[in-house]
Amino acid sequence: MRSLPLSQIKMTDPFWTRWQTVLVETTLPAEYDQLVKTDRLKNFERVAKGETGGFDGFYFNDSDTYKFVEACAYGLVARPSEEVRKQMQHCIDLVAAAQMPDGYINTYFQLNHPTMKWRNLNALHEMYCGGHLIEAGVAVYECLGDRKLMDVGIRFADHVMSLYGPDKKVGYCGHEEIELALIKLARASGENKYREFARWLVEIRGCRPSPFEPELQDEESLAIHPFSRKPKPDEKYEGDYYQDHLPIRQHTEVVGHAVRAMYLYIAAADLAEDPELVAALERTWDNLTRKRMYVTGGIGPSAHNEGFTTDYDLPNLSAYAETCAAIGLIFWGNALLQMSGNAEYAETMERALYNGAISGISLSGDQFFYVNPLESRGTHKRTPWFDCACCPPNIARLIGNVSSYVCAAADNDFYIHIPAGFDATTTLGGVKTKISVESNYPWSGKITVRIDPEKPTEFALHFRIPDWSEDVSTEVPNAEEEAGYEKGYAVFKRTWKPGDTLLVDLGMEPKWVESDPRVRDNLGRVALTCGPLIYTAESHDLGFAPQLFCADVEAPIVTQPSDVGEGIKALSVEGSMEVELFADSLYAEPGTTDIREATATFIPYYAWNNRGPSNMQVWVRQL
Amino acid sequence: MRSLPLSQIKMTDPFWTRWQTVLVETTLPAEYDQLVKTDRLKNFERVAKGETGGFDGFYFNDSDTYKFVEACAYGLVARPSEEVRKQMQHCIDLVAAAQMPDGYINTYFQLNHPTMKWRNLNALHEMYCGGHLIEAGVAVYECLGDRKLMDVGIRFADHVMSLYGPDKKVGYCGHEEIELALIKLARASGENKYREFARWLVEIRGCRPSPFEPELQDEESLAIHPFSRKPKPDEKYEGDYYQDHLPIRQHTEVVGHAVRAMYLYIAAADLAEDPELVAALERTWDNLTRKRMYVTGGIGPSAHNEGFTTDYDLPNLSAYAETCAAIGLIFWGNALLQMSGNAEYAETMERALYNGAISGISLSGDQFFYVNPLESRGTHKRTPWFDCACCPPNIARLIGNVSSYVCAAADNDFYIHIPAGFDATTTLGGVKTKISVESNYPWSGKITVRIDPEKPTEFALHFRIPDWSEDVSTEVPNAEEEAGYEKGYAVFKRTWKPGDTLLVDLGMEPKWVESDPRVRDNLGRVALTCGPLIYTAESHDLGFAPQLFCADVEAPIVTQPSDVGEGIKALSVEGSMEVELFADSLYAEPGTTDIREATATFIPYYAWNNRGPSNMQVWVRQL
Repeated sequence: MRSLPLSQIKMTDPFWTRWQTVLVETTLPAEYDQLVKTDRLKNFERVAKGETGGFDGFYFNDSDTYKFVEACAYGLVARPSEEVRKQMQHCIDLVAAAQMPDGYINTYFQLNHPTMKWRNLNALHEMYCGGHLIEAGVAVYECLGDRKLMDVGIRFADHVMSLYGPDKKVGYCGHEEIELALIKLARASGENKYREFARWLVEIRGCRPSPFEPELQDEESLAIHPFSRKPKPDEKYEGDYYQDHLPIRQHTEVVGHAVRAMYLYIAAADLAEDPELVAALERTWDNLTRKRMYVTGGIGPSAHNEGFTTDYDLPNLSAYAETCAAIGLIFWGNALLQMSGNAEYAETMERALYNGAISGISLSGDQFFYVNPLESRGTHKRTPWFDCACCPPNIARLIGNVSSYVCAAADNDFYIHIPAGFDATTTLGGVKTKISVESNYPWSGKITVRIDPEKPTEFALHFRIPDWSEDVSTEVPNAEEEAGYEKGYAVFKRTWKPGDTLLVDLGMEPKWVESDPRVRDNLGRVALTCGPLIYTAESHDLGFAPQLFCADVEAPIVTQPSDVGEGIKALSVEGSMEVELFADSLYAEPGTTDIREATATFIPYYAWNNRGPSNMQVWVRQL
Repeated sequence: MRSLPLSQIKMTDPFWTRWQTVLVETTLPAEYDQLVKTDRLKNFERVAKGETGGFDGFYFNDSDTYKFVEACAYGLVARPSEEVRKQMQHCIDLVAAAQMPDGYINTYFQLNHPTMKWRNLNALHEMYCGGHLIEAGVAVYECLGDRKLMDVGIRFADHVMSLYGPDKKVGYCGHEEIELALIKLARASGENKYREFARWLVEIRGCRPSPFEPELQDEESLAIHPFSRKPKPDEKYEGDYYQDHLPIRQHTEVVGHAVRAMYLYIAAADLAEDPELVAALERTWDNLTRKRMYVTGGIGPSAHNEGFTTDYDLPNLSAYAETCAAIGLIFWGNALLQMSGNAEYAETMERALYNGAISGISLSGDQFFYVNPLESRGTHKRTPWFDCACCPPNIARLIGNVSSYVCAAADNDFYIHIPAGFDATTTLGGVKTKISVESNYPWSGKITVRIDPEKPTEFALHFRIPDWSEDVSTEVPNAEEEAGYEKGYAVFKRTWKPGDTLLVDLGMEPKWVESDPRVRDNLGRVALTCGPLIYTAESHDLGFAPQLFCADVEAPIVTQPSDVGEGIKALSVEGSMEVELFADSLYAEPGTTDIREATATFIPYYAWNNRGPSNMQVWVRQL
């Protein structure tokens, strides 16, 4: 099973066409402006001109330009834009001009520390940046046919492979990324050596001695990193932070920095061909999604390490849940889904996509969250950019490339993982076939799939039945075959004729969920959902802080339009609230606070904080 | 109204006699061992020997020795101990030997940075350490009659006053402390100049330009402080952290580091003679106790600044609530109480004393908390010492000196602020009078006060009626006068004869309290109290995590002995709990978790974490 090339699929539902329009019209031009304003492009220019010194910003800033280019490539397939095309091309030209003859490229080192290259792999992100360069190059090549940037990436990859590898030095990056990029490069270039090098990088990580240990004694190199410090003499090297604690086949739980962990596991899933590695990934995924994932698909609760802590530790107010981590979870889910065909992975991918990832961008497309808490007391707000700006271009490339996650095809199978609306064309059973999904997802669970092969052809259409759905009905008019059910998908294996349809009603109704009681922060609390969406209560709608609200989960839930954005459905629920009047003492006998009936209108979590900062709460108290 | 000299009062109730026994037999010897083990005494020794370099630890470590000496002086009055007396004397001798001829003493500067003295008042605590030296000297002199250490303190004070003052340089310490110490020194020495210098220090603080502003540009001096950094060019100086934001008369709310704020306000309350300053203190106190104080009397919720945040921000799990801050609150409350005679201050003083302060020491007396959260998920634990060890000797001096807080006397008035058991002798109405309170407080609200003047004498006995009390009865057998009621005290103004008694029953019953709903973290939650004690649920007693418990506040509360310590009363309450069984998915429909009836036994908050780390929760959910 493989995602379709972007040229063969186009999103058609109001939800994603709006996001992709915003992407190309607003997000990408705004991000380009930031790349200019913050001297991220200037760094490449300076290198190209042969200047030295003067690098400004974080040592990994090159990666933002690469991810921007990648997002442009996807966006331009969805919606042509001369402005974005020129901006992308300008970036590509600058990057190409900055590459050294030996293939090296990293403007931080080239400008400020030319003698310090490859001395601090654990902290200084040279391979990480190169990985994003490679991903961008592959995207431009695959989407637009231009291989200029991919060739830059190939030269960088070859340079890295001239230094590191099974017969050379042992080394890998403190921030995983190049592994998954090399796998893409192997596919795009047809050169399997990149995939095999990626495999080596993934498998050597976590072995002992770690190449990071001597690096942490290199004071000259530590000195140029803002947070690095030499370990104390009695400090044992652990390596958890960058998943260097154990070889991947021994992993049982997610540890350390969440984005790094996801990027490692994405590559590993793409490489997993033997049962031992598959089992390691499955058990680590289970740990993540059954014990350490917010209901929004947000992951990595702690700001301290931008990552994981312990099972069931999911605080809401202080949730870190970085936008990039949810995006990484989508990528990993998709890789495992394609590996296994198991709908469980699509379930989580959908959860993160419609909630904890897309929450990272404003409806207007030009304001971002780095951190995605599940409660706010009014201080959390969106901003146009960050000093560490990984999230804005990451969400841009996710939106541009969303069609890679909604469906997949094999020779005789077509999978609809997420019933978003799209028009796709692929070859099924040897016959060129158009598949159109007519959908107003996630606002409606009524879906029509039109199948239009050039001539009748036999293939299996797999339509995922979400866990949240109830009273599902599926119908292929005039068909005599019964639907099968396999790995979470309704399966229609038959000879499809031009004009055939599949009608699906997922029975999408609002419903409450509760948490495993081991999630202490959610005890006595419920969250409102509807289909794939997690809802939240925001003071803009309530007129009071949602922390005061207690929901009556037995009362009817009323659907209504929301003023937060066109097409967005709000849900009104009944309950009670504490009235904020109290004697002038902080503490008094129970019953001092008045309780009155209250109605609370919830909006989708992803849409919060679009009317300014607010009090917000996903997990409200249950009456 | 003034506290009685320690020589004139002795605690007699089981609660405080146990603590004072533990203090002298365990706490003080254990702390002395730590002073030796951590080279805190060695630093004085090195200076005395004329060595240079080699100071180890924090730049304020001298203060721990001073506070230890102060605690010894108090402890030795309560309970003689040759071991403790020798340890104290050894410290005094070392300190005296380390003082420079000009009066300067601070072993950090003397050993490691002799040229950097008085250049970084905002961060480097020279006056702070000197303040604790002075307090210790006064305590040893007043309790034991030995003025050697007080003379060291006087020389230091004179040295400081030769540098700073109205006609000299403007300067004060980033950590307040010397102000309140100088007031004590004025009283003990009879030299009013120390009090006036303290007044200048208190009043000049917060004026502009601040003396701290140029210091923050002194890179050489900043470099020797572990956390200091030069402000960015566009950074406006605020000074909140050390209460240097506004002149004290303009204060309206507590800001910055909690202990520093308390120490400033203690001195200010001792100096407040005009309505403007009194009003500033009253409104700041109101802000603190009505909007920013935990139910335990803990203050300063944030670890970030070891201090204050915003109104009603009182998170339980992450509560900082430093032991020293609660102790400071007791001192401030006592100062305002003596200034005003208003029982409101005694109420808070009692709350902090029996809960958030005493929680900082283990029942065994040799394990401490720096941080006093109101919830734990099993990781918080007591330790024998800290790198920054302000709390252990602070709680020791509080316990040693507790009789200063339970009562006070004026010429014709005797005040019982807290009905702990004690024997006191003082002069009332010109007649030497013995007042004995027979009490098993805080375990019982039945109190007998025996009044035994040498001959009949007229004075007013003021007995505080706590806010929490109900159905209070007071009786002076054979008396004809009715009790008055003034500022929260029952007042018995009469001619007292030898053998007279006052019988009081405060109607102490367990009861629940709730929070002002603006405290978001406590919405839907209740805390169990009994008399002055706040109770808490600990997994040691429950057999399950108290976060799972929901209390039925209508059900009877049963008193029973606790195994946590002799004499400690536990309270059993009824309610329900979630059973920790759940499908292998984190989220599911409401009702997936089984709920069953449960009984939870609560113990006093101060006694938690004496059977090892545990899950603990003060604010439990209400059914």
